[in-house]
Amino acid sequence: MTVTASALTAAPAARRRVSMIITGGTVVTMDAQRRVIESGAVAIDGTTIVGVETADAIARNFVARDTVRADGAVVMPGLINTHGHAAMVMYRGLADDLALMEWLQKYIFPAEGKTVSPELVRVGTRLAALEMIQSGTTLYTDMYYFEDEVAKATKQAGMRGVLGQSVIGFPVADAKTPADALARADRFMEAYRNDPLIVATVAPHSMYTLDAASLQATRDLARKYGVPLLTHLAETETEVKDSQAAHQMSPAAYFESLGFWDTHAVAAHFVHISDEDIALLRKHEVGLSHNPESNMKLASGAAPLAKCLKAGLAVGLGTDGAASNNDLDMFEAMRQAAFLHKLVDRDPTVASAETVLEMATIGGARALGMADKLGSLEPGKLADVIVVSMQSARQTPLYHPISHLVYVTRGDDVRTTIVNGRVLMRDRRMLTLDPAVVLREARAMAKAVKAAVDGVAAQAQSSVAR
Amino acid sequence: MTVTASALTAAPAARRRVSMIITGGTVVTMDAQRRVIESGAVAIDGTTIVGVETADAIARNFVARDTVRADGAVVMPGLINTHGHAAMVMYRGLADDLALMEWLQKYIFPAEGKTVSPELVRVGTRLAALEMIQSGTTLYTDMYYFEDEVAKATKQAGMRGVLGQSVIGFPVADAKTPADALARADRFMEAYRNDPLIVATVAPHSMYTLDAASLQATRDLARKYGVPLLTHLAETETEVKDSQAAHQMSPAAYFESLGFWDTHAVAAHFVHISDEDIALLRKHEVGLSHNPESNMKLASGAAPLAKCLKAGLAVGLGTDGAASNNDLDMFEAMRQAAFLHKLVDRDPTVASAETVLEMATIGGARALGMADKLGSLEPGKLADVIVVSMQSARQTPLYHPISHLVYVTRGDDVRTTIVNGRVLMRDRRMLTLDPAVVLREARAMAKAVKAAVDGVAAQAQSSVAR
Repeated sequence: MTVTASALTAAPAARRRVSMIITGGTVVTMDAQRRVIESGAVAIDGTTIVGVETADAIARNFVARDTVRADGAVVMPGLINTHGHAAMVMYRGLADDLALMEWLQKYIFPAEGKTVSPELVRVGTRLAALEMIQSGTTLYTDMYYFEDEVAKATKQAGMRGVLGQSVIGFPVADAKTPADALARADRFMEAYRNDPLIVATVAPHSMYTLDAASLQATRDLARKYGVPLLTHLAETETEVKDSQAAHQMSPAAYFESLGFWDTHAVAAHFVHISDEDIALLRKHEVGLSHNPESNMKLASGAAPLAKCLKAGLAVGLGTDGAASNNDLDMFEAMRQAAFLHKLVDRDPTVASAETVLEMATIGGARALGMADKLGSLEPGKLADVIVVSMQSARQTPLYHPISHLVYVTRGDDVRTTIVNGRVLMRDRRMLTLDPAVVLREARAMAKAVKAAVDGVAAQAQSSVAR
Repeated sequence: MTVTASALTAAPAARRRVSMIITGGTVVTMDAQRRVIESGAVAIDGTTIVGVETADAIARNFVARDTVRADGAVVMPGLINTHGHAAMVMYRGLADDLALMEWLQKYIFPAEGKTVSPELVRVGTRLAALEMIQSGTTLYTDMYYFEDEVAKATKQAGMRGVLGQSVIGFPVADAKTPADALARADRFMEAYRNDPLIVATVAPHSMYTLDAASLQATRDLARKYGVPLLTHLAETETEVKDSQAAHQMSPAAYFESLGFWDTHAVAAHFVHISDEDIALLRKHEVGLSHNPESNMKLASGAAPLAKCLKAGLAVGLGTDGAASNNDLDMFEAMRQAAFLHKLVDRDPTVASAETVLEMATIGGARALGMADKLGSLEPGKLADVIVVSMQSARQTPLYHPISHLVYVTRGDDVRTTIVNGRVLMRDRRMLTLDPAVVLREARAMAKAVKAAVDGVAAQAQSSVAR
């Protein structure tokens, strides 16, 4: 046996034993220097990232119980979805291409009114989690009913969630009054205090569906638990007009007048905000969630993204619920954000691939107030990591990985999804959820949804006939 | 043995022997009645569709040598891409998010200037064909150089192509002058006259890159062979302004003044056209190709789609070249068209799922003047058929197949692609192209492209240093 010089220098003095090494791919770190490491590797110990370097350097310093090969792939932070209503996957494609009020009144409200239940939320959240894990989302944000069911399903799937119990000013499936919903939220937040995966919070629906006292009560609740307050902001022109009429203020200014922004909040949509609103949101360090697909499909408008980014606001990306998207694929959200703002601003340099990738990772973490722990691959951060294949015809040739991640990659290219150091999907095989069971349950539940909507249609038909 | 009544009635008198039956899926015909047949089937004999009915009816009337199962899938016409530059896949992701002139002058022109060759066109077209077959495109439209190489590669892949030899007013890789290009086009069109898969034609680049006589010569050539004339129209505001300055007319009106529209033409982009232009294009029955992704990514603008459809124009959908998209996936083009026009028109009812699916199938066939043979599943039409899986989490639940085709389906969901009765991909396995070889050749060729662009960058760097 010949001992070569390189074997001598490579001889490990004392390599640290870790739980996992992901090696051989191009590591897109999204760290402060935006390092992209070709033939890189990530070392994970337990729930935490402990090394992000070249594959050679990691091999010199660490030895792992489990090695994930990432050849021909990108290794990157898991995607962060900053706004949505997971269980609404049960209503995806139920009705499309309708005026907002017709869509809501003939389909979504009747369907929700007749079918929202703990069981629907459980089945829908599991379906959503399956889709999200399969498309590389590791942390998602939710606003819905029976949020304790959402949390249970999310934990079973192994995902991370910022989950907001909805509070809204009219009777809904899980609360007759805002006071009921607040009490429910308080119990929920108490139950999940310090959970390793779930941030349990409260989600006041909007400034136009709640009175001032209820809005302030949600703020107090979020502050009590030190969690982000989730709401919708300035989604439609109507909301802004109505706010001006009722309060002589924009929605953002009205929220400010109530002291609503005096705790960390995340506002979704922000389509119709003024320059003054942007300054105000910046002052209060409100996190923003941009939802380009929903805003386009519902014809709400285009958020002033470039201005918000220029003002230094923390902006994440969201899909919104699948009833208005119709999927939960963050790669599609990235592509759409990049396309939309180039068109609207008539400037092909805005919403660059790197900018939208930031929004889907570290930007989302900033918006949620979790950038110290998530959003990039760096030692000390939690191990939410995805491996994304770059081998398809569609991804060939490969000149720049970040361009390809945004412009030609689909959720289905995600090969492996890891949350908190645990592998949820490996080489497309799901480890925490059984897809056959999840899909079967969802299809069965869909029959009830269909019957509810058809019932409403039949009723409308017969009342016309009379 | 008991003979039941149903067995008696089902006993086939004389079933017709055919080459193939695709059965068990939901058949989305796109015929004049827009029939959607659950548990439907399509019978194909040779190159032609001979039956489109319920699976039971087809089983009663036909017996096939080969049966394709389509359970849990949609069976539909192959997608028709009405505009693009296939070989430009070699430049995809080479540079993005740049102002148009910087992108062209620093990247695309140098790359093309140094690397366009018969070999690059061959390798690029094969890569494009692989991507298109894998994503359900059965007929595509092309405008590029060395179009004879494009035709060869297209035939080898088994696809259908409307392929236009480029004619442009400055020296390019395959022609020093428009006269050279015209002569090349004539030879090309003669060689492929009456080809079962290839419509060989000529593609004058645009009204601003060619003189009047050359434009008229291309028209004469298209008329001589009875094929559609391909060009770009009103893609940017600059084009329209320059046309007004030079000719005191819009691009569409200038073309008309030359008699350019006196033969069947297909105009791509039509972003900046007026109501008068729309009337004029309608009068001359010009086919239109809408390219929403390219128009957004290059910040060109939004074509007046709703107006054109209302005027009765034949509008197809296109991807444009992958350098400005960056993929050739017609499902993405459909989704983008649906989203874009809802936003721009601030109306969620425009560009419905059915409308954009029409554009990608029968509308494209109409625009190309081939609707008598293609674009829908009907007896007597050519057998260009795809089978699209509807089984993913993303596609669950399934309330309306057409909504799902547009809003949640990806090219990768296409399971089987059939052109002219020949199976090109079956259950994701490619039968006419070897993906490993195609990708290897493309990656090798990409090195030359990268070197050419890096050379230009280095040159620019050193001239700055001097």
